[in-house]
Amino acid sequence: MAVTLAIDCMGGDHGPSVTVPAALDFLRRDPDCSVILVGRQEILQPLLGSAQAAFGERLRIYHASETVTMDEPIASALRGKKDSSMRIAAELVKSGEAQAAVSAGNTAALMAISRFVLKTLPGIERPAIASIVPTLNRYTYLLDLGANVDCQPEHLLQFAIMGAMLFSALEHKERPSVGLLNIGEEAIKGNEAVKRAGDLLKDSGLNFYGNVEGDDIYKGTVDVVVCDGFVGNVALKASEGLAHMISAALREEFKRNWLTRLAALMALPVLNSFKRRFDPRRYNGGSLLGLKGIVVKSHGSADALAFFCALERAAEAARNQLPERIAARMAQPSPTT
Amino acid sequence: MAVTLAIDCMGGDHGPSVTVPAALDFLRRDPDCSVILVGRQEILQPLLGSAQAAFGERLRIYHASETVTMDEPIASALRGKKDSSMRIAAELVKSGEAQAAVSAGNTAALMAISRFVLKTLPGIERPAIASIVPTLNRYTYLLDLGANVDCQPEHLLQFAIMGAMLFSALEHKERPSVGLLNIGEEAIKGNEAVKRAGDLLKDSGLNFYGNVEGDDIYKGTVDVVVCDGFVGNVALKASEGLAHMISAALREEFKRNWLTRLAALMALPVLNSFKRRFDPRRYNGGSLLGLKGIVVKSHGSADALAFFCALERAAEAARNQLPERIAARMAQPSPTT
Repeated sequence: MAVTLAIDCMGGDHGPSVTVPAALDFLRRDPDCSVILVGRQEILQPLLGSAQAAFGERLRIYHASETVTMDEPIASALRGKKDSSMRIAAELVKSGEAQAAVSAGNTAALMAISRFVLKTLPGIERPAIASIVPTLNRYTYLLDLGANVDCQPEHLLQFAIMGAMLFSALEHKERPSVGLLNIGEEAIKGNEAVKRAGDLLKDSGLNFYGNVEGDDIYKGTVDVVVCDGFVGNVALKASEGLAHMISAALREEFKRNWLTRLAALMALPVLNSFKRRFDPRRYNGGSLLGLKGIVVKSHGSADALAFFCALERAAEAARNQLPERIAARMAQPSPTT
Repeated sequence: MAVTLAIDCMGGDHGPSVTVPAALDFLRRDPDCSVILVGRQEILQPLLGSAQAAFGERLRIYHASETVTMDEPIASALRGKKDSSMRIAAELVKSGEAQAAVSAGNTAALMAISRFVLKTLPGIERPAIASIVPTLNRYTYLLDLGANVDCQPEHLLQFAIMGAMLFSALEHKERPSVGLLNIGEEAIKGNEAVKRAGDLLKDSGLNFYGNVEGDDIYKGTVDVVVCDGFVGNVALKASEGLAHMISAALREEFKRNWLTRLAALMALPVLNSFKRRFDPRRYNGGSLLGLKGIVVKSHGSADALAFFCALERAAEAARNQLPERIAARMAQPSPTT
């Protein structure tokens, strides 16, 4: 299916120097797709070179005079910058000119703007953010990741539905398994919201596995792990911190003396293949779920490869009609049917 | 200072085959200390060999006819087994015959029994469990780890006080820095309890660093990281899962073919030194905090070295009068002084 992406080219730590090359690469590899580069014409135009001629109609620039900065407060981004590249990208999805928007900008502003412009789907009270986490042999989708704290059980149920639909859209699996993140001790198990969410999930008609614990995220016990945004954010950031520490410590150990440096040289191909396998760039692209339209959030520090992966993820969600899937599931007369 | 430990020898996945050798090793290395081995006399006695003669008065057996199993419900452990080795160990602390109890048994039962037997310190509403997490150059104390979910701000403040006193007792640092675990996004920052806990901590007189995020746990940004038991449990278990996945994946990569196996052989000393550095056995021994007595929880699967480390930690907490420190801090007329 032909898909047009609206790309906020000004967002992220690196702006157009990353987003434009990634967009051109995407056009090269996905000959059905088109992109609308949103941002300041005078900055974007010179970066295109011969690309405009090569891709013709498939590559357009849509001028937006303002940029949401990475630390801009939501109120200012939402009300003060009505011509921001982030806002225009969302509006292009709203109008139907694009099927998905992608931005590496400020997460909170992107969520607020997307919610304001696109609105939520019927029955969804809070949009969520989902991310992909690698496991030994596959991956787990984890949500929510910081958009929602202090969740009610009904919110967790909605996250489960959205996460399952995202997994089915991107991974082509009809009934992905869903786990509810909880803690293990018998009698002190879970907080109140999670306990009651478990009851709702049992009756939801989803392929509900039951409770899972923190280590199940990386074991790949289930396809989708559901938790509130506070817990998901902490779990993901703690993991990032640990991965960083392990890699720094390994580097230190391999640099200790000439013998360990020699060992490092020998082990380099193995270590590199390990690095490629868990390259976080390949997992870039968090989905903003529950909106009447597709919005994908790239990591702010994404390089061109990482941003390209976010674009591919957005196109795949559009091809597989993610919002329509969620809407259809939410519209079922009873969740148990 | 001479310290006597009451050791629940029957708890844990391996029971006396681990706890008794660890206790004997502890007596060997800590000539000031004594131990009371609590458990079934007829099982423990034969394991002592010549040790009883060698250690004399420093090594005693205290017969307890029952054992709390690893998956035993709290009610049954608390009300149904009044002569369990876990219960007797706590009672030996209560009576003053021992200065600390150590168990590798069922966490929930240990917490319930310790709380019932020892009672909480004045001002402490909920005891907490703290663990030690390695960072690149030192370590971070993290609490709570599952004893408390749905925490009020006042509970988080109490955890902060207990964690700071634990750090000062075990690491001999007068004013350890304390961070409050939170999430990063500006306008959606934190849940209500955490926001209000931040205000309490600012006025607490503790060396409060402010909010920290999940990755700060492994960066060593602060000495003590405070969060509710649900979040702490998930963060720790997610980390365990990730560490396990990374080590399994590295093993896979090194086993791919004869070339990578050769590389593994070369890299073995480096990988082993890395493993030693982050050996989780060295971090074994979670502290049950806020009780009128010291109780240390060993990992259920601990081997003799890991259990030995938990014993050392308990002795160190006793030498440095941990409960007295917490009580003194709680008794200060105003938390800001």
